[in-house]
Amino acid sequence: MNKNVNIKNVIIDKPLKLDCGQTINNYSLAYETYGSLNENKDNAILIFHALTGDQFVSGINPITKKEGWWSYAVGSGKAIDTDKYFVICANVIGGCMGSFGPSDINPDTNKKYGTTFPVITINDMVNAQFNLLNFFNIDKLFAVMGGSMGGMQTLQFVNNFPDKAKVAIPIACTASHSAQNIAFNELGRQSIMADANWENGDYSNQNKNPNKGLSVARMAAHITYLSKNGLQEKFGRKLQERDDLKFGFDADFQIESYLRYQGSVFVDRFDANSYLYITRAMDYFDLIKEHHGNLSKAFEKTKTKFLIISFTSDWLYPTSENKEIVIALNAIGADVGFVEIESDKGHDSFLLKVPKFLNTLGDYIKTAYSKN
Amino acid sequence: MNKNVNIKNVIIDKPLKLDCGQTINNYSLAYETYGSLNENKDNAILIFHALTGDQFVSGINPITKKEGWWSYAVGSGKAIDTDKYFVICANVIGGCMGSFGPSDINPDTNKKYGTTFPVITINDMVNAQFNLLNFFNIDKLFAVMGGSMGGMQTLQFVNNFPDKAKVAIPIACTASHSAQNIAFNELGRQSIMADANWENGDYSNQNKNPNKGLSVARMAAHITYLSKNGLQEKFGRKLQERDDLKFGFDADFQIESYLRYQGSVFVDRFDANSYLYITRAMDYFDLIKEHHGNLSKAFEKTKTKFLIISFTSDWLYPTSENKEIVIALNAIGADVGFVEIESDKGHDSFLLKVPKFLNTLGDYIKTAYSKN
Repeated sequence: MNKNVNIKNVIIDKPLKLDCGQTINNYSLAYETYGSLNENKDNAILIFHALTGDQFVSGINPITKKEGWWSYAVGSGKAIDTDKYFVICANVIGGCMGSFGPSDINPDTNKKYGTTFPVITINDMVNAQFNLLNFFNIDKLFAVMGGSMGGMQTLQFVNNFPDKAKVAIPIACTASHSAQNIAFNELGRQSIMADANWENGDYSNQNKNPNKGLSVARMAAHITYLSKNGLQEKFGRKLQERDDLKFGFDADFQIESYLRYQGSVFVDRFDANSYLYITRAMDYFDLIKEHHGNLSKAFEKTKTKFLIISFTSDWLYPTSENKEIVIALNAIGADVGFVEIESDKGHDSFLLKVPKFLNTLGDYIKTAYSKN
Repeated sequence: MNKNVNIKNVIIDKPLKLDCGQTINNYSLAYETYGSLNENKDNAILIFHALTGDQFVSGINPITKKEGWWSYAVGSGKAIDTDKYFVICANVIGGCMGSFGPSDINPDTNKKYGTTFPVITINDMVNAQFNLLNFFNIDKLFAVMGGSMGGMQTLQFVNNFPDKAKVAIPIACTASHSAQNIAFNELGRQSIMADANWENGDYSNQNKNPNKGLSVARMAAHITYLSKNGLQEKFGRKLQERDDLKFGFDADFQIESYLRYQGSVFVDRFDANSYLYITRAMDYFDLIKEHHGNLSKAFEKTKTKFLIISFTSDWLYPTSENKEIVIALNAIGADVGFVEIESDKGHDSFLLKVPKFLNTLGDYIKTAYSKN
């Protein structure tokens, strides 16, 4: 992380008991806001980011100098209209963009935590971010929402704080991380831990970086974010700058150089240990088990209105898993809408310019707010 | 490879011009046979193995001491009945089980080839193995067959030698490696090459082994061999030997320890550079492009009867890609059967005890041979 960039943060001076048993206090939450909180304080939207996201939802990310991860959805006149709503997003704890994470210095040892950082859960992330309501002096959010791991946090938020959001929009997510999801995350972790520069998690104290391992982890994850058909249409078997096969191990196909590029730019903005901790939090997520097999119990105390959105070509968090949430909500007569968006862009659809998705999201938010 | 094990091989003393332009000669093909060639020499079946397979199709593999990779299908009284047929299988060139490969010593340098070994293709593999017909004094094979990369070799064999097999059975394969297939293979290669012990492919001359990278590559591939539902049913979120989460990075879930185990046993039997070369050969495979977009042309000179088999839950080589082959064969009025087998075991179905598959295979072979 470039330390010359001004990262807004709040120090939370309220103890938080983590699921692992440890208690943290005076920890940092790095955040961004977009738009303004109105006088009634009823227009606030808390957005939760995904595994490799951060608080820089829209506009230019000051670290990467690229557009924020949800720039298609969030901004003036967009689905999440910053002329109307006050948007808040914080970096998750365990992250590497200014919130309390494994690359922070442990005051007890004066060394970076590395893997001595406590293992955190989605529940911990959400409980930490709940403090933002107090910080911004908001009693009740208009909405909570997010895609992928952001959707898991959305579900967990309503479970933990049933009367703190009018609307919840979990997108392309699941109520319980599947064996295949765990398998892909474990693959990424093993790739990082296989890098000789990982040094049992102590690399940053030794001025090393397990960049090769982290890059391979990103490549693996990236494949899962795209659909088979989408990859075929975008890349197929197109060759790199040449007409013929090179008969070697350089990137011959465009898909190869694309993946290598995705890996190489990722290591510039992300911390390997954060990748371990956040994937672990996702793997531990199981709102169904938390309620002894009955997901409806997670929502029975809430009047929050739900919109669940899935994408046809998302094979990481397929429609079937999103529907489980819909079924659990319907079973208790909750106010729930469900839309499966036709898209060939795979799990990444929620981050991309998919008009049907952005229109659905925008229309729902507009209508829900008008009934506020 | 354990050099104390007796590996049968033949030295091919006929020059083979590879697709990369190099010519090889006096190269080794390691093989196994099962059953006996009959007097008419019309009962020979050439089986092609998949990426990590070898010539030890059935019985106990002398290297791994485990059952051969196709023991469910090949043996006395089985679908490929060794009481009736003479089964031949050779290790592919580029492999590491006795055929000419990157772990061989280059006589010009007295060092192991490593990545100075020529890049090979599926076409090269098949052209090399064609010499087995001469070696066994067989004019025409009863059948050629194989799953996955073995299926690709089957297609290439009929393309190259249209009158040398009565029957061809490509299983769970494709006529052209897709972008997603290339992406997963590239992920495996990058994982190997990221290992500090890979040493630009020269590890075996330096008594090193990129086992961590190779292990991660195997884990990645293994996930693709299983279906999402199959993984969920087999492992779900079952924990390891404990009732509670451990809040650490050891294997908490059974799927994690399973993957780690798959990675760890693989490195004992497979060479990292062979993994690079063989995945490269798969990625280069494109029988459609070879015929300028018209796959039918690959088969228009043949009278070989085809049976194409796919599996419902195979997302690596899905039914749709297998059907492309069927369509191409139908377009020229070829004798072609097609069966999609219901199975939740994913791509690996062809290696496993899937009765519907084994019965289909056995019945087809029996009927086809009776009409011999």
